[in-house]
Amino acid sequence: MSTINRLREDLIETGKLGRTSPKRIERYDHLDPEKGVTRPTGTDENRKIRDYAVARMREAGLEVKIDKAGNIFGKKPGSKTAKGAVMSGSHLDSVINGGMFDGSLGVFGAIEAIRRMNDEGFENERPLEVAVFTGEEGSAFSPTLLGSSVLTGRLSVDEAWGRENARGETLEEALENIGYKGGFERSLDDVEYFIEMHVEQGPILDKEGISVGIVENISGTTWIMATILGEQNHAGTTPMRVRKDALVAASDIISFINRRANEMVEKLGASTVGTVGKLNVFPNVTNVVPGKVEIGIDIRDVVQENAENLKNETLQAIRDAERKYEVDIHVELPFTHASVPLSEEVVNAIENSARQVGIVTKRMDSGAGHDCRNMAKVTKAGMIFVPSVNGISHAPLEWTNWADIEKGMEVLVQALKNLSRL
Amino acid sequence: MSTINRLREDLIETGKLGRTSPKRIERYDHLDPEKGVTRPTGTDENRKIRDYAVARMREAGLEVKIDKAGNIFGKKPGSKTAKGAVMSGSHLDSVINGGMFDGSLGVFGAIEAIRRMNDEGFENERPLEVAVFTGEEGSAFSPTLLGSSVLTGRLSVDEAWGRENARGETLEEALENIGYKGGFERSLDDVEYFIEMHVEQGPILDKEGISVGIVENISGTTWIMATILGEQNHAGTTPMRVRKDALVAASDIISFINRRANEMVEKLGASTVGTVGKLNVFPNVTNVVPGKVEIGIDIRDVVQENAENLKNETLQAIRDAERKYEVDIHVELPFTHASVPLSEEVVNAIENSARQVGIVTKRMDSGAGHDCRNMAKVTKAGMIFVPSVNGISHAPLEWTNWADIEKGMEVLVQALKNLSRL
Repeated sequence: MSTINRLREDLIETGKLGRTSPKRIERYDHLDPEKGVTRPTGTDENRKIRDYAVARMREAGLEVKIDKAGNIFGKKPGSKTAKGAVMSGSHLDSVINGGMFDGSLGVFGAIEAIRRMNDEGFENERPLEVAVFTGEEGSAFSPTLLGSSVLTGRLSVDEAWGRENARGETLEEALENIGYKGGFERSLDDVEYFIEMHVEQGPILDKEGISVGIVENISGTTWIMATILGEQNHAGTTPMRVRKDALVAASDIISFINRRANEMVEKLGASTVGTVGKLNVFPNVTNVVPGKVEIGIDIRDVVQENAENLKNETLQAIRDAERKYEVDIHVELPFTHASVPLSEEVVNAIENSARQVGIVTKRMDSGAGHDCRNMAKVTKAGMIFVPSVNGISHAPLEWTNWADIEKGMEVLVQALKNLSRL
Repeated sequence: MSTINRLREDLIETGKLGRTSPKRIERYDHLDPEKGVTRPTGTDENRKIRDYAVARMREAGLEVKIDKAGNIFGKKPGSKTAKGAVMSGSHLDSVINGGMFDGSLGVFGAIEAIRRMNDEGFENERPLEVAVFTGEEGSAFSPTLLGSSVLTGRLSVDEAWGRENARGETLEEALENIGYKGGFERSLDDVEYFIEMHVEQGPILDKEGISVGIVENISGTTWIMATILGEQNHAGTTPMRVRKDALVAASDIISFINRRANEMVEKLGASTVGTVGKLNVFPNVTNVVPGKVEIGIDIRDVVQENAENLKNETLQAIRDAERKYEVDIHVELPFTHASVPLSEEVVNAIENSARQVGIVTKRMDSGAGHDCRNMAKVTKAGMIFVPSVNGISHAPLEWTNWADIEKGMEVLVQALKNLSRL
């Protein structure tokens, strides 16, 4: 089996796990827009893809360990054991009804890199490690980036174990149930470099026809959760002037965020994005004036000041809507992640490796958060992006062409080889 | 038991049916904003309140009949049987988590009117009838005004029987299950006048401190259901300029309807109301650009031209949003009811009756649809409104003060007496 066929087989096989009526999906036109993959942490499908990855790691000769947060590590010793390891990996959990490459590509790509080095008898000086991080998506247990947060000391094991999914099951119980509650706490003191290969999840590489992106910054993310309390009333009998319509107030806020983010992009050339992705109306009946609306707002920029400005302007727009429509708006800011620059040393190493193997790359920023955001705080970290067809991700139509994946692989292998001998 | 206490007892007893943790509710401050009444057609609670009403009708000496649509009629013969009857009534079904007066007041008020006439030995020339209409709210079986639509020939018995609730049960099965599938089709050829007493469900009488409203027109209602199809995508990685955000498009439409209806009220003095009461977002996740949004729009005015104008302008706003945001919007118009004027003869009769008993009234329009809308097409029909505290209805906090109910009763009794001798 040729090398790209081996990785393709891993992705196609695991791409069936958690998918409604699984079938062999080798081409974009095999995708069903209704049928994505669903493998949140702790589900049986999540266990199956973990088991599959562990089996491939062991076949590749890696020594596998599981830490208390359920993160999986597969190690290949180096010839100079005193040097810090080069780690590569990503996550195997998914959003609800998501795509088959998000996360999985970085895990099976790292395993494939080890296999290729094994095949050619490459002698790494630094140890090489494949990592699988628990619960990146936050689709079962909040927050997102759960496993790498424990690994990098942002969250204690006890805090993580105590998190509950929608069924009231704790992370500790869920990991125990799927057989991935490990017995030790992993330290990253023995890791020097980290590279995560991932699908871009945006349209830039696909539009520009470039196969490999090198991430310089991971943008900051701020969430604003607002609950708007108006007055529920009969839509036929409540005159316009006495209404306190929670949905009309919400519309002002939605329009503001969209207009202002667009302005910042046009006028400042900023990379700002502002989204209201979640909105719940109560009682949600056509002939009843909405009495309550909940909205979830997501604001991002690699330039922290832009994100901060849009956040503050949005909070002001919320206050304006509160006064204008005589509603009460309760605001929560569940988290603000600052934007994170990746290691210039690793960015350069990836760029030079690509040049070595003759592949064109583009430096870019990541609008999505990734485990690499956490890893960048305790290791020298970088990311390799491959194109998402039409920029689609977190959706069943997520796709990356096999030819692009092979180019990403060649850059990843060369970069891991080069870093392992630094 | 004094007369108002007798009606109060009926409303308090039946106000417990279908209510979560039922308790005695005699005053506004007894209400729990979370715990309304739920008695859609065909439920066990709907059967119980029907049984209660039938028992009171029989106690009052009425001859009870059930028609094929499950409408209940209780008849008191008149001394001049050749003359058409005077009918009064309303509905006993409720919305989900609604109030205890909506509908019930008109049924138990009509029964109480018969009891008062019995008590004083009043001799009616025309027959008197109490009516209970099936499925006014449409909360189990669509459309709304189901029973009165069959009764007035807008819908055939077979069409009505074939309607299904969310469990897939037909109306015919549901009526059979609760013991209210009657064996005959009622004609209204023998009915001359109809009066429905109802809570206003709006704030006007409560704000103006007037106990009794006399309805001149029931406003027309148009529904527009729109499905907006954009592109679901990652909120962090999809640049603003390439988005097709279905919720941003929806916000434009919501803002337009609210702004334009307000303008029509201010500039034209119109009674127009425009509401987006329902909105569903898909996939409804904070960090995903909404790919699909469904909205339900409700437009009303007693002046049909105003409603028609707002409908057409809204359809234009939908086309504008479709172009501006490059989304696809699919529109359905499930129904348009024209506004219906009530009988000037009955309006005058109610006004004169109120003068006779010394009660101040106000002529007004009804923004809500009522069975009276159907009845007005085949009988001379009118409505008596009593105030809704704070204008609240279709919600657990719906309330009408007992003193106002008594004034409504006095006007109703006098009007029925006067009409029965015309």
